[in-house]
Amino acid sequence: MTEKDFFRVTTLKAVLELIRTLPCVGEEVLALDRSVGRILAQDVFSSIDLPEFNRATMDGYAVQARSTFGTSESMPALFAVVGSVEMGEVPTVSVKAGEAVRIATGGMVPDGADSVVMVEHTQALDAHTVEVFKSAAPLQHVMEVGEDIRKGEKILVMGSRIRPQEMGVLAALGQAHVPVYKQPVLAIISSGDEIVPVDQTPDLSQLRDVNAHSLAGLISLSGGIPLYLGIGKDDFDELDRLCRQALAQADMVLISGGSSVGSRDFTLEVLQGLPDAEILVHGVSISPGKPTILARSGEKPVWGLPGQITSAMVVFHVLVRPALERISGLSESELGKSRQVPAVLSRNLASVQGRDDHVRVKLVRQGERLYAEPILGKSGLIHTMVKADGLIRIDRDSEGLDKGAPVEVMLF
Amino acid sequence: MTEKDFFRVTTLKAVLELIRTLPCVGEEVLALDRSVGRILAQDVFSSIDLPEFNRATMDGYAVQARSTFGTSESMPALFAVVGSVEMGEVPTVSVKAGEAVRIATGGMVPDGADSVVMVEHTQALDAHTVEVFKSAAPLQHVMEVGEDIRKGEKILVMGSRIRPQEMGVLAALGQAHVPVYKQPVLAIISSGDEIVPVDQTPDLSQLRDVNAHSLAGLISLSGGIPLYLGIGKDDFDELDRLCRQALAQADMVLISGGSSVGSRDFTLEVLQGLPDAEILVHGVSISPGKPTILARSGEKPVWGLPGQITSAMVVFHVLVRPALERISGLSESELGKSRQVPAVLSRNLASVQGRDDHVRVKLVRQGERLYAEPILGKSGLIHTMVKADGLIRIDRDSEGLDKGAPVEVMLF
Repeated sequence: MTEKDFFRVTTLKAVLELIRTLPCVGEEVLALDRSVGRILAQDVFSSIDLPEFNRATMDGYAVQARSTFGTSESMPALFAVVGSVEMGEVPTVSVKAGEAVRIATGGMVPDGADSVVMVEHTQALDAHTVEVFKSAAPLQHVMEVGEDIRKGEKILVMGSRIRPQEMGVLAALGQAHVPVYKQPVLAIISSGDEIVPVDQTPDLSQLRDVNAHSLAGLISLSGGIPLYLGIGKDDFDELDRLCRQALAQADMVLISGGSSVGSRDFTLEVLQGLPDAEILVHGVSISPGKPTILARSGEKPVWGLPGQITSAMVVFHVLVRPALERISGLSESELGKSRQVPAVLSRNLASVQGRDDHVRVKLVRQGERLYAEPILGKSGLIHTMVKADGLIRIDRDSEGLDKGAPVEVMLF
Repeated sequence: MTEKDFFRVTTLKAVLELIRTLPCVGEEVLALDRSVGRILAQDVFSSIDLPEFNRATMDGYAVQARSTFGTSESMPALFAVVGSVEMGEVPTVSVKAGEAVRIATGGMVPDGADSVVMVEHTQALDAHTVEVFKSAAPLQHVMEVGEDIRKGEKILVMGSRIRPQEMGVLAALGQAHVPVYKQPVLAIISSGDEIVPVDQTPDLSQLRDVNAHSLAGLISLSGGIPLYLGIGKDDFDELDRLCRQALAQADMVLISGGSSVGSRDFTLEVLQGLPDAEILVHGVSISPGKPTILARSGEKPVWGLPGQITSAMVVFHVLVRPALERISGLSESELGKSRQVPAVLSRNLASVQGRDDHVRVKLVRQGERLYAEPILGKSGLIHTMVKADGLIRIDRDSEGLDKGAPVEVMLF
């Protein structure tokens, strides 16, 4: 193999297809209060009707709607106030024609009543009489039994992310504990003779371990748990030992660094020697990020990421995050959801056919439009990532995009 | 005061102005690895140039660019290979005209060389000679000293949120510890005789404590720490005790429930009796969420939220989150950032003038456009929140929005 055809690259699409075949992590049961952001491991069916009783949704008077028909500001109707409903108590009165019961928002609508007249549309004349001057429709300001959620209904779907509203539904159903997928643990190994820990002053020609920290942040924000295993020098035994430790402790492994051809060969050699190992991908037709490796040891994915920090971050967004979401149990329909916003490209962008290009952009709002403004500067510079809000992709079949073209921005 | 003019409501704009005057929480110093998502409490200036040495950004040969001028596939130039640069080591050779030094991505460009020729544009003839068949520009594939970040440059700004790329910058500068604002603690008190804990089966007419759980989730996702103090029955002394406990332990207090007029009066009375208390807002001209109360005790904000879960959640998104972000130290320019996406309204929506209406919407993508599709159904139903992706606001000066109108969606 000559150096020129070193990479027999895989397309982005093919790598994403591969990722869909990765198996999920296991499940666990969590206290409801610790479940926000986690992924449901079971469908949730309602064991009850919600509400469980006809509930008033306004402060006012519970009445029979037909007793109010025809009333108006100029033709008020008089009602006999026969009681009031205390919060949290079952009413002891029932409502007949021409009668009204004082009720507060959230109170249980008494038998006989089918409507609540807002207090703003009434005038109390004395303790026992109220004037109603607006006619009420049946079920007005009443939430009926089961109107929100029906008993037996599938209300939450396995594989969806638990937001505060889903927590509310689970609370309403009395689910103080929730079955969720475990958070995948992702081991990070930095490799390279030139890398020193952050708290160490690098000699001239050495570099601080930038990538491990950015990757840890990306893993946390993507719902995983980062496990930093330290820096491995370019030594087969040392990298092999770190990889085996990672496979024992983690669900997925990221090897960061080794950006030179020699170093990549070396990483490849270590990966090939792991138990039940297979190199799935060696080079991806994306830019930046071409030298990416994806291997497996048993069922666990192992990534070899480019050494340049900006390339490593792009590969994380484009490939590692989907893989992490996949093994997290996130459903197909939620993959990447809410991380993408449509925008309009602010200038022409050239691109090379045959690879998916990823360009850093800043979002700029002008009136009603959201513009994606490409960040200029060499791709390896980390300050370009600090300036950017996200990435856009230029398809492998395209020679570029024109100013004004619609683009999807993957938000950081 | 009659029931009709019970509320002298404050506009949304005025409440948001008030929120801008809230003081920030204190600062702390965190290990870099725990800093993701936190807010920088100081500007960061670079103490070094980045890179600290001229770095190769490709695998290849370091040369003097002018020695390559005029070369091409048909007119290759011969170079004498005088050495190679090991990763992490200062080169011992220097490069003269017609000489080349083998170098890998990330390596230190040796003295004399000003350019790197990609290995793909070379052919090694023997161990000491290489053919170059493409001319190289000066500084090609070389990242110069300080090209990414200059020594002394302000690179990160106080009040900005630390993303993975900011962690990378901090790592590169050797900042193993980071000054950040503390995470505000938000106490949650549920109030109401009708509320029972989630793990308890409610009697008919009672409700499980839904709001506390959704609020806890919202607080966590907004960068705060929820502190749940339990359910206070409608009893002055009990609610007063819980509020004082909350003020002792938290930076902001949320009282949830008390949705009826009577219960609101009661909450108001307790708030007025707190140390150095002032009722700042009693009713806001928004829908849903009108009965919202904002008070202060000393410098700490205390919110009385509507009892209906959907109203409470809307008020959190519209008012409490901005307040939380404000006391978290988030800079003006980042408030609400990346939580808003522009979309197009899918149908006509009527609205009442004189209040800011908030409508739940689902985002639906059709081709290049993102549509905001209003969720129908009574506003109090929690399943409408589960179906929704965010909120749109209809301005208080508007009578509604037409199908096709541009809207901003506040994402959940």
